[in-house]
Amino acid sequence: MREFRAKPVVESLTQKYKEEANELKSRGIFPALAIVRVGQREDDLAYERGIIKRFESADCKVMVHELPGDVSFEEVKELLLRLDRDDKVHGILMFRPLPKHLDEDALRNLVSAKKDADCMSDINMAHVFAQDGVGYPPCTPEAVVEMLKFYEVPLKGKRVTVVGRSMVVGRPLAMLLLKENATVTICHTGTEDLKAECQRADIVCAAAGSPRMIGPDHVRKGQIIMDVGINVVDGKMCGDVDYDAVAPLAEAITPVPGGVGGVTTAMLLGHVMASAKGASGQNS
Amino acid sequence: MREFRAKPVVESLTQKYKEEANELKSRGIFPALAIVRVGQREDDLAYERGIIKRFESADCKVMVHELPGDVSFEEVKELLLRLDRDDKVHGILMFRPLPKHLDEDALRNLVSAKKDADCMSDINMAHVFAQDGVGYPPCTPEAVVEMLKFYEVPLKGKRVTVVGRSMVVGRPLAMLLLKENATVTICHTGTEDLKAECQRADIVCAAAGSPRMIGPDHVRKGQIIMDVGINVVDGKMCGDVDYDAVAPLAEAITPVPGGVGGVTTAMLLGHVMASAKGASGQNS
Repeated sequence: MREFRAKPVVESLTQKYKEEANELKSRGIFPALAIVRVGQREDDLAYERGIIKRFESADCKVMVHELPGDVSFEEVKELLLRLDRDDKVHGILMFRPLPKHLDEDALRNLVSAKKDADCMSDINMAHVFAQDGVGYPPCTPEAVVEMLKFYEVPLKGKRVTVVGRSMVVGRPLAMLLLKENATVTICHTGTEDLKAECQRADIVCAAAGSPRMIGPDHVRKGQIIMDVGINVVDGKMCGDVDYDAVAPLAEAITPVPGGVGGVTTAMLLGHVMASAKGASGQNS
Repeated sequence: MREFRAKPVVESLTQKYKEEANELKSRGIFPALAIVRVGQREDDLAYERGIIKRFESADCKVMVHELPGDVSFEEVKELLLRLDRDDKVHGILMFRPLPKHLDEDALRNLVSAKKDADCMSDINMAHVFAQDGVGYPPCTPEAVVEMLKFYEVPLKGKRVTVVGRSMVVGRPLAMLLLKENATVTICHTGTEDLKAECQRADIVCAAAGSPRMIGPDHVRKGQIIMDVGINVVDGKMCGDVDYDAVAPLAEAITPVPGGVGGVTTAMLLGHVMASAKGASGQNS
């Protein structure tokens, strides 16, 4: 059994981006992400710390715009539009969910494709669906494909079962895998025989948001198991895969923590770098 | 073997829409589709005739706007925006592909969600991807699901293999099937063992655009075979399924012509009716 860990993937990408960032700086361009955070949710703060650490390690900038929890729609809108116009900002990330009094659908669609670093807008999601090379895909599903490529897992023609159909992971992941010419099966709570759908796959991607739901009965020897779940049970973080029971069977598996989740911020960094370089494509 | 024919589906829908149209007329609303056709391609003209016939049978109107093949971008744009503002127009359909000198991507995105009767715009396609109930899905994949429902084929939990990943049929069809809680596998030219992927399905949807590519080796007894292909071979229309060889094995199968393709214009009619009734949702 091999363990696909985030660390080597992130180190490799960070080194590359650091070199690119310093080259850009010599030309007066300082790759920068603007974070828009409303209030002080602990989840947001933890993610923010992870992003800042990742960007600092590549000599890139993060500018945090903290807004009070009772901020008005107009104020958030003005900030987003100002950041979108600002040439010194190469990517924008607004933490969600927003407080209920704010119209999240309206706000998340204000950012232009090139600066929408984590695919908040409907139009960028349409580009992910079409896989037409415009905009950036959401960071988490992209991290899954990036890890598979880093660890040299062939995808062309392979059977991949995606467990979960959310717009955050499952559906965009299915589209990214189709682009790699995988044969993709999308499973969900309505699937009649999930065990069979998982067992026949070459690669299983668990993105259901249900702690340890993929157990030894779902897998067979020789499979690659990508665990996208991040759950907290009894104060301890775990994935959607029952790691201890599944790992002995798998050809390779991602741990939680230390797996897919750890690569997400490197994808975000990649989008900001691509935007700073003047690129705008998913292929860049 | 049962044959799933378009005719009963269309007759049932047309009758319903005719009653609704006459009720609307009594309130001064005349359900109307505007067609924008550039040039006189034979494919477009044939489709146009089919649409006019369908709409007439439900006492609804079609207004054809024919533009010369060398029309300018500005002229098409002005027409689309004028139709979009016109309260007497409840749906807009622009035949594509457009001549190469016109920026099709810009033009197809000018029509608002409510009047975009065949899902031309990226934003409506994003709504199909998200299945969030806004806008109308493309007519052809919707016709597949409509036929399955009409013939009372259960979809929840069933295995459906979609052959083809186009933005016209394959991908939106996969999303519409997911909404019905089917377990969906998307196959394509890169799939290693297409026969196995088809054979294990409860329902096979062939939308590859390759004449008679699904043969008796791809199917097993008891399956439902939905043929979305429209090909012309030796002057004769045929589907993506080798009908004569496959039909004896199938539980049910759609013929070509007379199957899925025949239901498409009824979906278009349904979108115009929904828009005329002031509805705007995919669920309406």
